[in-house]
Amino acid sequence: MGNTFGRLFRVTTFGESHGIGVGAVVDGCPPRIELSGKDIQPQLDRRRPGQSDLTTPRDEKDRVEILAGAENGKTLGTPIALLVRNADQRPEDYGEITTIPRPSHADFTYMQKYGIHASSGGGRSSARETIGRVAAGAIAEKFLREKFGVEIVAWVRAAGTVDAGNLTARPITRADVDKTPVRCPDPKTAEKMTALIKETRDRKDSVGGIVTCVCRNVPAGWGEPVFDKLEALLAHAMLSIPATKGFEIGSGFAGTAMTGSGHNDPFVLKHGKLGTVSNRSGGVQGGISNGEPIVFNVAFKPPATIGLPQKTCDQTGRETVLEAKGRHDPCVVPRAVPIVEAMAALVLADMALIQASRQ
Amino acid sequence: MGNTFGRLFRVTTFGESHGIGVGAVVDGCPPRIELSGKDIQPQLDRRRPGQSDLTTPRDEKDRVEILAGAENGKTLGTPIALLVRNADQRPEDYGEITTIPRPSHADFTYMQKYGIHASSGGGRSSARETIGRVAAGAIAEKFLREKFGVEIVAWVRAAGTVDAGNLTARPITRADVDKTPVRCPDPKTAEKMTALIKETRDRKDSVGGIVTCVCRNVPAGWGEPVFDKLEALLAHAMLSIPATKGFEIGSGFAGTAMTGSGHNDPFVLKHGKLGTVSNRSGGVQGGISNGEPIVFNVAFKPPATIGLPQKTCDQTGRETVLEAKGRHDPCVVPRAVPIVEAMAALVLADMALIQASRQ
Amino acid sequence: MGNTFGRLFRVTTFGESHGIGVGAVVDGCPPRIELSGKDIQPQLDRRRPGQSDLTTPRDEKDRVEILAGAENGKTLGTPIALLVRNADQRPEDYGEITTIPRPSHADFTYMQKYGIHASSGGGRSSARETIGRVAAGAIAEKFLREKFGVEIVAWVRAAGTVDAGNLTARPITRADVDKTPVRCPDPKTAEKMTALIKETRDRKDSVGGIVTCVCRNVPAGWGEPVFDKLEALLAHAMLSIPATKGFEIGSGFAGTAMTGSGHNDPFVLKHGKLGTVSNRSGGVQGGISNGEPIVFNVAFKPPATIGLPQKTCDQTGRETVLEAKGRHDPCVVPRAVPIVEAMAALVLADMALIQASRQ
Amino acid sequence: MGNTFGRLFRVTTFGESHGIGVGAVVDGCPPRIELSGKDIQPQLDRRRPGQSDLTTPRDEKDRVEILAGAENGKTLGTPIALLVRNADQRPEDYGEITTIPRPSHADFTYMQKYGIHASSGGGRSSARETIGRVAAGAIAEKFLREKFGVEIVAWVRAAGTVDAGNLTARPITRADVDKTPVRCPDPKTAEKMTALIKETRDRKDSVGGIVTCVCRNVPAGWGEPVFDKLEALLAHAMLSIPATKGFEIGSGFAGTAMTGSGHNDPFVLKHGKLGTVSNRSGGVQGGISNGEPIVFNVAFKPPATIGLPQKTCDQTGRETVLEAKGRHDPCVVPRAVPIVEAMAALVLADMALIQASRQ
Repeated sequence: MGNTFGRLFRVTTFGESHGIGVGAVVDGCPPRIELSGKDIQPQLDRRRPGQSDLTTPRDEKDRVEILAGAENGKTLGTPIALLVRNADQRPEDYGEITTIPRPSHADFTYMQKYGIHASSGGGRSSARETIGRVAAGAIAEKFLREKFGVEIVAWVRAAGTVDAGNLTARPITRADVDKTPVRCPDPKTAEKMTALIKETRDRKDSVGGIVTCVCRNVPAGWGEPVFDKLEALLAHAMLSIPATKGFEIGSGFAGTAMTGSGHNDPFVLKHGKLGTVSNRSGGVQGGISNGEPIVFNVAFKPPATIGLPQKTCDQTGRETVLEAKGRHDPCVVPRAVPIVEAMAALVLADMALIQASRQ
Repeated sequence: MGNTFGRLFRVTTFGESHGIGVGAVVDGCPPRIELSGKDIQPQLDRRRPGQSDLTTPRDEKDRVEILAGAENGKTLGTPIALLVRNADQRPEDYGEITTIPRPSHADFTYMQKYGIHASSGGGRSSARETIGRVAAGAIAEKFLREKFGVEIVAWVRAAGTVDAGNLTARPITRADVDKTPVRCPDPKTAEKMTALIKETRDRKDSVGGIVTCVCRNVPAGWGEPVFDKLEALLAHAMLSIPATKGFEIGSGFAGTAMTGSGHNDPFVLKHGKLGTVSNRSGGVQGGISNGEPIVFNVAFKPPATIGLPQKTCDQTGRETVLEAKGRHDPCVVPRAVPIVEAMAALVLADMALIQASRQ
Repeated sequence: MGNTFGRLFRVTTFGESHGIGVGAVVDGCPPRIELSGKDIQPQLDRRRPGQSDLTTPRDEKDRVEILAGAENGKTLGTPIALLVRNADQRPEDYGEITTIPRPSHADFTYMQKYGIHASSGGGRSSARETIGRVAAGAIAEKFLREKFGVEIVAWVRAAGTVDAGNLTARPITRADVDKTPVRCPDPKTAEKMTALIKETRDRKDSVGGIVTCVCRNVPAGWGEPVFDKLEALLAHAMLSIPATKGFEIGSGFAGTAMTGSGHNDPFVLKHGKLGTVSNRSGGVQGGISNGEPIVFNVAFKPPATIGLPQKTCDQTGRETVLEAKGRHDPCVVPRAVPIVEAMAALVLADMALIQASRQ
Repeated sequence: MGNTFGRLFRVTTFGESHGIGVGAVVDGCPPRIELSGKDIQPQLDRRRPGQSDLTTPRDEKDRVEILAGAENGKTLGTPIALLVRNADQRPEDYGEITTIPRPSHADFTYMQKYGIHASSGGGRSSARETIGRVAAGAIAEKFLREKFGVEIVAWVRAAGTVDAGNLTARPITRADVDKTPVRCPDPKTAEKMTALIKETRDRKDSVGGIVTCVCRNVPAGWGEPVFDKLEALLAHAMLSIPATKGFEIGSGFAGTAMTGSGHNDPFVLKHGKLGTVSNRSGGVQGGISNGEPIVFNVAFKPPATIGLPQKTCDQTGRETVLEAKGRHDPCVVPRAVPIVEAMAALVLADMALIQASRQ
């Protein structure tokens, strides 16, 4: 259970980190959308390990194969099946982990839940699982862009203690984001982040961070109250990404300290339609998009797997010290950027279809 | 769409604020659980308006009627239908709102989405909608308590700028929480919050706040990766509550600034089972409960409806000034406490059933 | 589980036969459809007991109350909650049944499944449960008629051994069907059926029958292969009605003896669109409507509850003779007609919305 | 939409007949079940084309590859991904079909629904789609057999006009069924069927048939009223198989002509539990299994694609004569046997898990 996301635009993912491959089946994608591997590969490339010396050295090309659902470069309306084969597995790195569960990692809970665990690496809890999401999200994004002009851009707002602050007022593009491997569009802050991540990596430690995401040109009317409010589905989507610990939309936690008179977004006429002067609502009112940009932050904790020795205990409860081998990111947020974008696209495509069903 | 929550333990809610009534149907509740109105009413009483002078003066007894699914004080395994009739409607208070959409409120987006809106008050976007959640959650909670000993306690951590800080180390009970109408279990902070809310109310303004929730005795193994991770479902549940803007579990946003070596929770033997020394994970690892308390925060914005004059525009785009009448809470967090508990219970009951299906 | 039907147009039903009431919540009905009790009551009246001396003498007015989701005679797009209170309960009739499970009835299996059973009558397994379906189906039908001109008409084709044969070539209306209480539009056959049912009733026995249903003006393109083919959803819907044992679409079981050359429906131009010369397909090809009338049959077994003495055994396995009291239909098909129509409408409305989401 | 089946034991299938391959993702299969290709291949072999001269000469080995979800011969509790690559595609056979929709085939309706169609063969409407079902069903069956001792056996009851009658009283095994390629366990009838099918094939025509299925050792208590009754889900499952036109359980359509006193199954003590003397109920009462064998029939129409010339019209409405090339079965029921078994297993595994969740 739990490997399918969405109502009408639905993705089901599969695959362990050190098995044959990972992938996804996308059901409900509308027919006659132009689609080839070229539409999917760029986001996979932004997600893949080994892009820069800030990420895990595991080397995977992550080439996507479209097994079904598209023909002659067009979607058929049938399920789109996507497969990325694993290449650079090294199961031998993970021997110790099977007896010593990594602190704050899924090793322990998978064993509690299933009574069995993939013998190598994270199995299904590995970040490799997100390949299916990113591939599916690229398809959702294409649909949203072509049909509605929706534009989704995420970036690294904070890495560890280095915080670029709220940049959502700037018209940031993916090109801006990709100017540095750390994916913070503010060059000065990007430099500091890079230094921090390298220093952290060299200490065999890890560090957390915050990703901001903006979705522009989302029409008013998307989101399905009361339980499937747009922000509720986005929160669900984001907290399902490995290593996430928080989600906030618009003013978020900071907004809790404000007064209503200071927080409310007054309406104003924009290009003949009602818009709002400010956007503390983050583009949603009452769980439904209001036509303003959707703006949210996602909190990522520092990766649990670190090379530093950790005092913990093994499965039998005996005290021990764990020094993880394997290849791991010192900070996940640069590679999390396309994952956040993908999950946002999956939510929006789903809501677009449901709202269209009414008309 | 969107009015059903859950997979096996499912609740469907209905009802507008100024219609005949509000309620819920709970499908999937196990049979042979003792259940009567007495199990449900206390949480409805904690949620109802008019409890204290900190809340809206709308006076509703909110008596629940069990229409189906239980007989002779026991659940039958069939759908449990719950109805609470509306009593103190005052549609005349809402005339102006139909032409001037309230800033940061659902008036505008409901009209954009549906092309029609309940003629009075918030309709389905009113906080009255949460009655069905609270009633259903009380049933879920009973199941969890009797079958697993699960204990769910939420409280007000912050109201506006007054923040009690992290109190999760204390063994707080609902009795502690209910010692003051503001529902902050720290007496000194509660006093300051009360003063702030009253002063805000008198200024015809509103203020936001943060609710903390702790779920104790949750067995290891609940949560359905990869998309239905426990924290993802909790985030979904919480962000579906009206006026919420954020969710964080364990270390949350603050944890993003930490290093892995400082953030990881080492394992230790506790009562013959593996537990963790610290709980920055908030009781989940890899989307699955680890046996430690589930701990999370929910951010509530200041209520959108305020008596202060607001410069905005009407539906036609003409500039105007809105002074909302109606009866509204100056701060929702005290009454949000049982709603947060209810939504947490609904998520946990659902995960309990799915995990049981494997065994 | 199992009390919700549909994907986008979803109905959740509740209620036991001898409890407070029965009802339904319809989520996903499009907004701005004119709706009042007058749109629902006629089908409830066709379903209710006590219409004629062919049915159970239990006397229920079955007045529907719309609790939510419509205002000033229009749907709001929010969940529509419907309640019908039970009036003529007689729990005392059912004492014996709780110790002697009725042969071929749900008494035994409900106890096996839930370990508890409503103390009187069928509880949730009673035909009273179908009130929620009929009320919800009336709303679905209104949507289908107004938006697409869809017309759904069912009738009794066979009662026991009296079979009117295939009448689908005739332009039968509901008025034609309702000319006799037995609801067979062929007057001669209706007479024979009436005689058979009365004679069966007087013998304290029961008899089965077949309902035929035709759905006209269904646009081509509805149905969601591969699992949610239109005929698969119709089969699901029909076999969920109490006492059903079979479903066939188009040529059905008789078609299995034919050759492809004799069975295929050739295409022909009709009013500028492709139609088919014959309709052995029953309006579906490959699980998708083809624009021709949807035609199917539903088999109903003879009701299990009969007054005749039956040799069986009680819950402890001791041999006994059961003579059921209570008030029961000698033949359910006349009252099943609106239930079949309702379930067909629910399937079609759901498929209409999903197909619309693509456009 | 529509490519996922099941609630807790869920299968999602993908793949076109002349694309790269077909397959399935099974989510919700319990962990720690022994599983390798050897558990799946036998049923695929019984389904594959080219087994005998009664079936299409398309030659496919249909070797299954387990991409994910099992390791070292055991399921992990994570999604099981299955892939079968297509080998013997011949797209050139299908040129004419793209302009002349085959009568009673999915060509026309897929184009109406999606506005596009796989360029060769049936695409997603081809019987090749059922490979994913059969592979997934083999896993479900293994779970059911090991955990509950459930035994599922289907056979050909009728091919065209040759009907073996009701054989359900015999203890038929799969070995009995596979004694002849036509898969009718009654040798005399099998001979007649074989002759009929060969003669039909030589005439370039096709013929329909009926498959009977028996599920033994199903515990009492499976099935989820009111909408997800066991027979409703079985009907849904069966009518989702290509070329099906009918479903009946127990006495089915014939039972409609009976009286209640003749139809009811009296209870009797069997091995210390309540069972029934007869089984006209087909193993279900009130939508829930009663512990007796589940028995049902599925009607298959004659395949639509035939070599005989058919007078019809092309997409533009111009009259023409179609003589289909391609390679097609003259009668699908022998190969449908494992498909029916697979779909039955998928339904039962799903119901087993849901019922287990209550305990």
